[in-house]
Amino acid sequence: MNDRAFKIGVVAPGSPVDRSIADRVTDIAASLDLGAIPEIHFHPQCFTECGHFAGNDATRVGAFVEIANNPEFDAIWFARGGYGSCRLLEAMLPELNDTARAKTYLGYSDVGAILGALYAQGFERVAHGPMAADVTREGGEATVERALRYLVAGDRSGLEPTAFENIQTAAFNISILSHLLGTPQQPDLSDHILMLEEVSEYMYRIDRYLFHITSNPEIRKVAGIKLGRCSDVPENDRAFGHDEEQCIRHWCERSGIPYLGRADIGHDIENKIVPFGNVAPALETAS
Amino acid sequence: MNDRAFKIGVVAPGSPVDRSIADRVTDIAASLDLGAIPEIHFHPQCFTECGHFAGNDATRVGAFVEIANNPEFDAIWFARGGYGSCRLLEAMLPELNDTARAKTYLGYSDVGAILGALYAQGFERVAHGPMAADVTREGGEATVERALRYLVAGDRSGLEPTAFENIQTAAFNISILSHLLGTPQQPDLSDHILMLEEVSEYMYRIDRYLFHITSNPEIRKVAGIKLGRCSDVPENDRAFGHDEEQCIRHWCERSGIPYLGRADIGHDIENKIVPFGNVAPALETAS
Repeated sequence: MNDRAFKIGVVAPGSPVDRSIADRVTDIAASLDLGAIPEIHFHPQCFTECGHFAGNDATRVGAFVEIANNPEFDAIWFARGGYGSCRLLEAMLPELNDTARAKTYLGYSDVGAILGALYAQGFERVAHGPMAADVTREGGEATVERALRYLVAGDRSGLEPTAFENIQTAAFNISILSHLLGTPQQPDLSDHILMLEEVSEYMYRIDRYLFHITSNPEIRKVAGIKLGRCSDVPENDRAFGHDEEQCIRHWCERSGIPYLGRADIGHDIENKIVPFGNVAPALETAS
Repeated sequence: MNDRAFKIGVVAPGSPVDRSIADRVTDIAASLDLGAIPEIHFHPQCFTECGHFAGNDATRVGAFVEIANNPEFDAIWFARGGYGSCRLLEAMLPELNDTARAKTYLGYSDVGAILGALYAQGFERVAHGPMAADVTREGGEATVERALRYLVAGDRSGLEPTAFENIQTAAFNISILSHLLGTPQQPDLSDHILMLEEVSEYMYRIDRYLFHITSNPEIRKVAGIKLGRCSDVPENDRAFGHDEEQCIRHWCERSGIPYLGRADIGHDIENKIVPFGNVAPALETAS
């Protein structure tokens, strides 16, 4: 990196965000002791509405590729999840150049489809962690600060503790990983500690997704699974009778995958950062 | 087949059913002109409750294997769906003998996980169609009659019309097929017409499942996709902006899979029967 300010491009490959999020995040960035104040550019696409999406597929592909391939940007930070990342993959991936490969990418939830696909393509600076829209959560300022310190300064204090175990890691929303299995975008997670989290899914569906994930022969090559938080599980008409930890223990036992306990990730303000692969070499650390 | 009555074993690999369903279905069977009245044996497991399931995994595996491997039974008819079939596969499949291979299997929804897995193992008489619990739908007597005529007499009048096109067919609930992709239970559907249906899924989730299904390289070898009914789609907080036919057309176009129009299947009384593979040779037809 040279002396210019660290430049973050924000795109929304799924659902749109309100402009107020950009202001709040920019204010937080300006208040941090990160040396030069990082420049955060919300691509206008983030605020575009097209049905469920932040612009149609072509608009979202265009914004992502524009920022990813532009050497002026050091990182892509995702605005929020929602739904729509998977719709971009097949058109987007062939457009990415070597500049795109050198960037850091940070997000979770729906954008896990992109993180997984980039990692499958050999991108080395992909991480699962907070997004800009997390600022709207109560207490979310610290969450956003965690993301910015990681992006701008490579600050490791926000990493999920497992990332320090000198082993490769990866993290996914459970349903999003399920939807990558058996596609060309399924990343090789052999020997990785795989962390999984979920939100707003019935427990029987969490169980069904875990069947799917742990039945995949490639996933069975992971070093182990850690379970993040499964929050806002709706009540079903018939109680499932097992909680998420019983479910993952069941499927790990059946599949022969070591269950390694809980991970500090989830759809909440405590959501820690999980680099894909080994922890990237530290950049210049702040202060 | 010899002169004895056709014998159907009913099992519930997912959720349980009420005993009244057995009575109602047995009455319908007795009223039909199927020659000897078929014998319908509801395994007691169907009425067992264990949390979400009709008995625990071992109970459900046991009931299925017991009926499947017993030469006294000509067919296995599934009581209902719900959730739980996928939990049986890995323990159940190695237990099945050649007697099990010769039987007819009929069901849909959650039990599609079993149908797909049996078809992947080379079972030749697997079909997607009505289950015993469909008798509880308004007008469901005719639905159950359709299933019984097919099971007992090989009656083709209840087949989905595509099955007569002299091409291999298969049918699945969209979410259930998604959960088989990339597992050893994924059946080879090359050159098949694949029919898909769904119930009670948000449209964005239907779209996401269709991404998954049409992104799978093996699924891309199908002869084409026909779309059954997608019923009881909940309203989302943000309208998705595309209906199910627009979604499947999008994904078929992107994946190069021919879209072949609508299929007469769904979670309803009109649900027609779709044999896996070629239509099985007719048994002695009734009357």
